[in-house]
Amino acid sequence: MKTSQPVAAGHPERIELVHGGGGRASAQLIERMFIRAFDNPMLQQKNDQARFDVPTRRLVMTTDAHVVSPLFFPGGDIGSLAVHGTLNDIAMAGAEPLYLAVSFILEEGILLRDLQRIVASMARASEAAGVPIVTGDTKVVERGKADGVFITTSAIGSVPNGVDLSADRAQPGDQILLSGTIGDHGVAILSARDSLGFTSPIRSDSAALHDLVKQMVRQVPTIRCMRDPTRGGLATALNEICQQSGVGMLIDEQAVAIAPAVQSACELLGLDPYYLANEGKLIAICPAAQADRLLAQMRAHPLGQGASRIGVVTTDPQAMVELQTALGGIRLLDWLNGDPLPRIC
Amino acid sequence: MKTSQPVAAGHPERIELVHGGGGRASAQLIERMFIRAFDNPMLQQKNDQARFDVPTRRLVMTTDAHVVSPLFFPGGDIGSLAVHGTLNDIAMAGAEPLYLAVSFILEEGILLRDLQRIVASMARASEAAGVPIVTGDTKVVERGKADGVFITTSAIGSVPNGVDLSADRAQPGDQILLSGTIGDHGVAILSARDSLGFTSPIRSDSAALHDLVKQMVRQVPTIRCMRDPTRGGLATALNEICQQSGVGMLIDEQAVAIAPAVQSACELLGLDPYYLANEGKLIAICPAAQADRLLAQMRAHPLGQGASRIGVVTTDPQAMVELQTALGGIRLLDWLNGDPLPRIC
Repeated sequence: MKTSQPVAAGHPERIELVHGGGGRASAQLIERMFIRAFDNPMLQQKNDQARFDVPTRRLVMTTDAHVVSPLFFPGGDIGSLAVHGTLNDIAMAGAEPLYLAVSFILEEGILLRDLQRIVASMARASEAAGVPIVTGDTKVVERGKADGVFITTSAIGSVPNGVDLSADRAQPGDQILLSGTIGDHGVAILSARDSLGFTSPIRSDSAALHDLVKQMVRQVPTIRCMRDPTRGGLATALNEICQQSGVGMLIDEQAVAIAPAVQSACELLGLDPYYLANEGKLIAICPAAQADRLLAQMRAHPLGQGASRIGVVTTDPQAMVELQTALGGIRLLDWLNGDPLPRIC
Repeated sequence: MKTSQPVAAGHPERIELVHGGGGRASAQLIERMFIRAFDNPMLQQKNDQARFDVPTRRLVMTTDAHVVSPLFFPGGDIGSLAVHGTLNDIAMAGAEPLYLAVSFILEEGILLRDLQRIVASMARASEAAGVPIVTGDTKVVERGKADGVFITTSAIGSVPNGVDLSADRAQPGDQILLSGTIGDHGVAILSARDSLGFTSPIRSDSAALHDLVKQMVRQVPTIRCMRDPTRGGLATALNEICQQSGVGMLIDEQAVAIAPAVQSACELLGLDPYYLANEGKLIAICPAAQADRLLAQMRAHPLGQGASRIGVVTTDPQAMVELQTALGGIRLLDWLNGDPLPRIC
């Protein structure tokens, strides 16, 4: 508050409370780190909001808090994950993401170089996706009142005419497609947790799916719904759709792809890959007549090369997901109960 | 992960990690607390995004993380503050807020009844403002890795035709209006911090300003810019406008209203009210010819009753804010340096 007080006195290499005060040090952090990395005309205006014109009046909006631990992991970090996760929530409506907004909660004492690395990763993910970060906010809390960096990303997107995806639209007879292997993100995070003393060659599948989705809805605009099986995994995402649509599902275990290294990690750790998080995969449900065409379109895209038809939507007033096992039996695939892997995203 | 594991086993009255797992306990928390409180058709769809039509293609978007400590304070709590703060960032563009999105980061162990109280307060603030909360997200982190509740709110709004407010538009000769007293929010938060052993009758001014702004831009669409002087206070907000517009300002100390209880708290604690946060006040800059009309419009609104003309925009290549004191002297009103009041919002 005294004008003679130096900015960021003791530790120029670390975030301090003063960086969150809204004064000169905050302005310098925003200018030197965020605006430089996310550079675009809207951020340069330095208003507390971004102004733009949207191409259509039919929009979607989403928000996600990211608290993944550790901050860096094979295949990504909290920065790229925060961009991908939010773009994917927009894409699951069949929409094209337009703009991103980002809020940081920083713990006093984190290294500026770690923050810089995260911010650079966000900037790369945003640029690769073609979706600019147009507004943001930064808060700093005392040491021990957060865990390094939390990032909340929000986005808006535009929905093409004729596209109407929603988890309450699945119908008996529809086909269920999955874009690739499951469990990669979950295992990658676990392998990055030193405490487990466990290593794996698996990298997170974290990726932005909106380009794949764009091709899919262009080819088959009658897709009923899509969902990315993140927290809670494939099993929970399928159960959510069943509950919302009032239908059942029969899933073919042999059609669900699992990387051998994920399978063996799950056996070692006593985990079920159906409940592990994914950050670059999607489930699509479509009328049976369009399934072949949609599957071919998915396989033609780099992020859908491993796509397969994993099951069908059934009539079931109890909205159960059943798994036909490799041995020919049927087992219930329930919602995730409990949370053995906190802070996976 | 085992289907037989009970939900929220040990402490049904507290948030547990399982509430953030994305499985059944998460779904129950969302259903029973958030959807019930924020009730609207878009949330009921339970998709990971909200879909809606916007009235115009000219939009603004904003995001803010809220980490205020303590969670409850005279005149509000983190829930109402998170709604008001974000609506005000939309309003400062002269825009009408349309939709809110909210992300919670919860610390394991917080009381469900505290969370319920915060959520109810958000719901009331959203309803009073006429702006629904249409999508959201919840994460839970381990005890000691956050501080109770952090809330990030994002919003979009539509900009009326002919309205073009930006902090780079102030011009020499423009008049500077302020909607009421300064420092109330900062003092209210301080009085709620037990550790200071300090009491005050002052309540936070936390309020949603978009209805006041709607009347203002309707009356005077040529307003150059508005800003809400939150973190960093009036002094920092004025400096930001000067820097962005490349102008100076001369502020009349006698025209800046400060409640006597705020003034005495500042004297007691050695603080300067010009650097204290406000959460229900705005600065408006307009051409001199429209200032009388704009001031009358502000005073006609309940949230602008205490409005006054506090100064003029000057020509100054160094972009300084000068304060003409009650004694006739001039002192420099610098940016906030340092942060004596962390976590004020």
